[in-house]
Amino acid sequence: MGNGELRVGLVGYAFMGVAHSHAWQMTNRVFDLPVRVRMVALCGRDETNVAAAAARLGWEEHVTDWRELVAREDIDVVDVCTPGDSHAEIVTAALAAGKHVVCEKPLANTVAEARQMADAAAEARSAGVRAFCGYNYRRLPAVGQMRRLVADGRLGTIHHVRATYLQDFFADPAFPLVWRLQRDRAGSGAIGNLGSHIIDLTQYVTGQLVTGVSALTETFVRRRPLPDGDGDGPVTVDDAALFTARLDGGAVASYEATWFATGHRNTLRVEINGSLGSVAFDLDRQNELEFYEAAGPRTEGGFRRILVTEPNHPHMSGTWPPGCAVGFEHPFVHEVRDFVAAVAAGEDPTPSFDDALQVQLVLDAVERSADLDSGWVKV
Amino acid sequence: MGNGELRVGLVGYAFMGVAHSHAWQMTNRVFDLPVRVRMVALCGRDETNVAAAAARLGWEEHVTDWRELVAREDIDVVDVCTPGDSHAEIVTAALAAGKHVVCEKPLANTVAEARQMADAAAEARSAGVRAFCGYNYRRLPAVGQMRRLVADGRLGTIHHVRATYLQDFFADPAFPLVWRLQRDRAGSGAIGNLGSHIIDLTQYVTGQLVTGVSALTETFVRRRPLPDGDGDGPVTVDDAALFTARLDGGAVASYEATWFATGHRNTLRVEINGSLGSVAFDLDRQNELEFYEAAGPRTEGGFRRILVTEPNHPHMSGTWPPGCAVGFEHPFVHEVRDFVAAVAAGEDPTPSFDDALQVQLVLDAVERSADLDSGWVKV
Amino acid sequence: MGNGELRVGLVGYAFMGVAHSHAWQMTNRVFDLPVRVRMVALCGRDETNVAAAAARLGWEEHVTDWRELVAREDIDVVDVCTPGDSHAEIVTAALAAGKHVVCEKPLANTVAEARQMADAAAEARSAGVRAFCGYNYRRLPAVGQMRRLVADGRLGTIHHVRATYLQDFFADPAFPLVWRLQRDRAGSGAIGNLGSHIIDLTQYVTGQLVTGVSALTETFVRRRPLPDGDGDGPVTVDDAALFTARLDGGAVASYEATWFATGHRNTLRVEINGSLGSVAFDLDRQNELEFYEAAGPRTEGGFRRILVTEPNHPHMSGTWPPGCAVGFEHPFVHEVRDFVAAVAAGEDPTPSFDDALQVQLVLDAVERSADLDSGWVKV
Amino acid sequence: MGNGELRVGLVGYAFMGVAHSHAWQMTNRVFDLPVRVRMVALCGRDETNVAAAAARLGWEEHVTDWRELVAREDIDVVDVCTPGDSHAEIVTAALAAGKHVVCEKPLANTVAEARQMADAAAEARSAGVRAFCGYNYRRLPAVGQMRRLVADGRLGTIHHVRATYLQDFFADPAFPLVWRLQRDRAGSGAIGNLGSHIIDLTQYVTGQLVTGVSALTETFVRRRPLPDGDGDGPVTVDDAALFTARLDGGAVASYEATWFATGHRNTLRVEINGSLGSVAFDLDRQNELEFYEAAGPRTEGGFRRILVTEPNHPHMSGTWPPGCAVGFEHPFVHEVRDFVAAVAAGEDPTPSFDDALQVQLVLDAVERSADLDSGWVKV
Repeated sequence: MGNGELRVGLVGYAFMGVAHSHAWQMTNRVFDLPVRVRMVALCGRDETNVAAAAARLGWEEHVTDWRELVAREDIDVVDVCTPGDSHAEIVTAALAAGKHVVCEKPLANTVAEARQMADAAAEARSAGVRAFCGYNYRRLPAVGQMRRLVADGRLGTIHHVRATYLQDFFADPAFPLVWRLQRDRAGSGAIGNLGSHIIDLTQYVTGQLVTGVSALTETFVRRRPLPDGDGDGPVTVDDAALFTARLDGGAVASYEATWFATGHRNTLRVEINGSLGSVAFDLDRQNELEFYEAAGPRTEGGFRRILVTEPNHPHMSGTWPPGCAVGFEHPFVHEVRDFVAAVAAGEDPTPSFDDALQVQLVLDAVERSADLDSGWVKV
Repeated sequence: MGNGELRVGLVGYAFMGVAHSHAWQMTNRVFDLPVRVRMVALCGRDETNVAAAAARLGWEEHVTDWRELVAREDIDVVDVCTPGDSHAEIVTAALAAGKHVVCEKPLANTVAEARQMADAAAEARSAGVRAFCGYNYRRLPAVGQMRRLVADGRLGTIHHVRATYLQDFFADPAFPLVWRLQRDRAGSGAIGNLGSHIIDLTQYVTGQLVTGVSALTETFVRRRPLPDGDGDGPVTVDDAALFTARLDGGAVASYEATWFATGHRNTLRVEINGSLGSVAFDLDRQNELEFYEAAGPRTEGGFRRILVTEPNHPHMSGTWPPGCAVGFEHPFVHEVRDFVAAVAAGEDPTPSFDDALQVQLVLDAVERSADLDSGWVKV
Repeated sequence: MGNGELRVGLVGYAFMGVAHSHAWQMTNRVFDLPVRVRMVALCGRDETNVAAAAARLGWEEHVTDWRELVAREDIDVVDVCTPGDSHAEIVTAALAAGKHVVCEKPLANTVAEARQMADAAAEARSAGVRAFCGYNYRRLPAVGQMRRLVADGRLGTIHHVRATYLQDFFADPAFPLVWRLQRDRAGSGAIGNLGSHIIDLTQYVTGQLVTGVSALTETFVRRRPLPDGDGDGPVTVDDAALFTARLDGGAVASYEATWFATGHRNTLRVEINGSLGSVAFDLDRQNELEFYEAAGPRTEGGFRRILVTEPNHPHMSGTWPPGCAVGFEHPFVHEVRDFVAAVAAGEDPTPSFDDALQVQLVLDAVERSADLDSGWVKV
Repeated sequence: MGNGELRVGLVGYAFMGVAHSHAWQMTNRVFDLPVRVRMVALCGRDETNVAAAAARLGWEEHVTDWRELVAREDIDVVDVCTPGDSHAEIVTAALAAGKHVVCEKPLANTVAEARQMADAAAEARSAGVRAFCGYNYRRLPAVGQMRRLVADGRLGTIHHVRATYLQDFFADPAFPLVWRLQRDRAGSGAIGNLGSHIIDLTQYVTGQLVTGVSALTETFVRRRPLPDGDGDGPVTVDDAALFTARLDGGAVASYEATWFATGHRNTLRVEINGSLGSVAFDLDRQNELEFYEAAGPRTEGGFRRILVTEPNHPHMSGTWPPGCAVGFEHPFVHEVRDFVAAVAAGEDPTPSFDDALQVQLVLDAVERSADLDSGWVKV
């Protein structure tokens, strides 16, 4: 850090790059942190495009080679928002160069890469270098409140976890064969793209880890038109994945991730049932949390709809008055806020690369179980 | 049938016996059917209690031995509302005596018994004797409407089925070791009690059969106090069962049945996603159906909440004006209505014993898969 | 009462006559009351139709003149389910003849008639004769629970009442000019038909009376086709009525009744806000109640959805296990139950004719205020 | 405008000042507009505080006298976010100086001031100077979609408008006597603060103007502790206001604004019923819209929950992918976007000062009707 500033370089300026740019920018505007963020450089391969994006998104400069970013003296943080197949190379190089790292989820496309990255982070940690993986939904206020209720013992012993992540983006068979549908680029399909979110979120909220799974995957549309309109090609990833699981605290769980749930744009639902209460969250109503407490007379009991919009809810510092909704970008801002605060304090931000590796191990177990005709696979 | 009457004898007068009594009684009051129901005799083992129940519920007589009911000339229908371990004996005797049979769900505690009953029904059918198994939720208007939408092709190709049946009756570890928690009486636990409903309902609504499963079961509380207060004993059934499945039309499915979902008294939820639309039902709001149609502009699309309270919704003949809710007892009344109409018309009522046997085969596959560490078991 | 029996005669067999018949019938089947109900005679003007209805609905006899019913020795109760313009004559004759009376709501078409009836009931009371007016929604379990919460002080001082009763039955201008749309038959329009329900319900639940109103009424479709298809005629009642009010406990209130709320079949909503909590009810989800308690941390507060399906909820005796929904007919059954119990105990059932007269006074004030350009009218 | 830039000065840096600052800042980041926004100066009376706020919120400079802002050559736009009692003076001075003006709602505390401001805007308009009043909820995507449905004739003839704005911020009698509760500062209470929003929103969405009202207001807590803790003082504004109204297209309407609706933080609900359909919006779920279409079979009809998160929904340009929620700040950003675009195009932005004056006239009529014992007052 130079002069009370944290100097950031960001690789990638598609959807996630824009979300991260916004978050870096808001951090100075909203929070009183011991260091100020400086948005030094945006990196992308196409010079014209990256120059325009840098100007618009508020970056001082642009570069076209991430290696340059990693090499520069005036960069403290490298933020990686590229597709998963390039994460390992960029991240390990950045860590080796002593840069703090933010890496979008999922950490990598394979367990091998993820483990390599976690090892690199462990080594860098001893030199005071921080690594962070961006499972953004952890910092939705409702998810934070969910975790707080569990951590405070309000649910008692957890018996059930039920998690689904439903989208319908690829339900139309005429949708073309984009990179997300190709194993070599995307690693896996709905399971990696959506399943990783619900695995991380449920482990985070319950404080329990998945110990084993039994899975089933399906590709409903096996060939799709090529994007350039010239013939078709094979879909090489899963359209949907369902699995049952056990958690190390004794809970049983079910998970489902799919791109074929017609009518659902981005519906992530989690419900947890414990001996003393239950809690449910639905991303379609991201400012709400349903909470049931078994205490009290049954005649007055019921799931209560908490509007998670109070200043003392988790991840609600620096926002509007009580009752005001937060949007999609909100948790990204709090990711950066917490990352900056952790770096300034010399602490490790979470989720760590180890947390992200654990998700990768579960994803891997899911794919192996699916290959074994749903046979149980330990994580 | 004597003299335009269908003369009924009912075995059992607990919860289900009361529900069936009410249904037999309402049938004459509400519908114009070619035959009238006559409630001849109620059967139970305790003479004092069964006499009081018969008087109250509107039965002309009472008897204390079901064999007497089966033997009487003036009985056309035997309705069996006893626990599952006695179904096979009573039902096969009644069919052999030429009585039409109504049997509460699940058909039996084992596949062997269920198969024997289905065989007996097949044989009796050739003599014009009818057999019916009471999966009551089929005749909720919302469930009927759900099936109609699927049958009319409004959902297109079905990709996903998601079914949960959540209760919390046994979540308290101090709840005693009742018969439902003992394998020799109840056959199985949540899977048989609750799972059977969602298996039947999803097969009915989709018109597809489960072809294979991968399952996991759990007993969270393994010993419970004996009902008489003298020590405790082992719970020998599942508290919860989760399984993934494939259906013969290409859909993938997930199922969960549990008694440990704190806050849920009787929450049966089913959602089905197809290529053209989706539909969702929640028993907590049994007069509603959520329906999404992919046709039309996305900006105006959404799950619409249909109040299934119009006279031309399924199973709504003979009820109140549009907009009036039906209660728990409603589908039982329509079961009897349809059973009586089928008998009068010389047709087979549904669900048939074969339908009920198919459910039993799935239940059996679920238990075997759970024993095989979630390995895939074909139905 | 002869011989432990309460012998009932019912006038009218349209919608409400059927609902009351069902309730009389269920009472013996469901409850243990000190007297048994005997359904002696159904009365209607068309002999063929009333005979068929009597047979179907379970009445022993039929008669074609209500005067006969009132005159008979073997009738203890006269239940009046005719249109409002005939209530006063039948009811006062029945009371004069020493019959207990059940009268459907609203009590009468005018304040003058209602007052005459209340006076007759007061006189009869001294002779041990009971009179009851059927505001059925009072005995929905959720409404009972609402009242209980208010009565127990759980809402504190009540500040706001918000009540709407929305239907869309007459929204289509092609709907014919039925009797409900004619002042001489129906007395008034939406205000009498729907408004009376929400006036009674809010007064009942809050324990406060309306002391003054400011109202606005509208007839959107002023001429409609005659039912016989020959030309059209004028609508002489209100299609919609809106009014603000003050209650004698200090609350302010808003009311709306309309037949032109497209998409609403039978949507009665009431919300009450007090200093300590709030409660909301929606007839479309009649087994639910929303309850907010201000006590406790704001971060955990929210409207909780109580399923009012527990055995110890109000008006839930004699029903199914916890979690089972009740239907439209349920409160009618409990009306009869409570009426029979009151008669047997020598007590006055509620709502009394005085309660019903108070509703009539509010309705009258509403119509007068509307005539006075919304000027304030005291009740 | 200097050099393709629109140079802005903002007066006020409390809640609304922060919201506007954020909006000015985001405009360059998110949209491609013909002019760029330059955040020149923030104005506030306390130099230390305004300097800190300017630095944090991204303003180049700070000033302590709004007159300086108005006088500067290098300012093109004056944005007024002060309490209502200072609006008229600042705004008219700015317009006279040829500055474009953004003014927070409500336009003024009195009709006289509002009229003076509207006149000033009309005069300035001829010189190409633009004036805009910030009724922010107009630019919620769901509200925009609501208006679009009405404008496209999807609701047919509008019969009913139902609007409530419920908060509970002052329900606690111990809450101190802040400026909002004093007539000389705030002009009025809940009616001006909250009622103005629902008046503007319903007029905007329906395209109809309120022509007359009948109103009732109440102050539940008449004395409150002074903020400095030394004794108490009188509350001189309304805590709640209820009114019925007629709109110039034939609809009848009810409105309620209150600070005493326990459990409601910021619940603005509007429902509109027309001859062909209905639409409902609830700010607690600001990314949703309920829409009912009367066309199609009644058995399939229902209010559908549209997630207003598609790129081609109104006011959704420049946001995240389909399915991503927007937060409280979103409509402010689109206000600025549309204001800048209008200024660049030489067009008048909306809502205009005339639109805002019309709201003021309704507010005034409401207060007069309340003084007249709810007598009808024409607007």
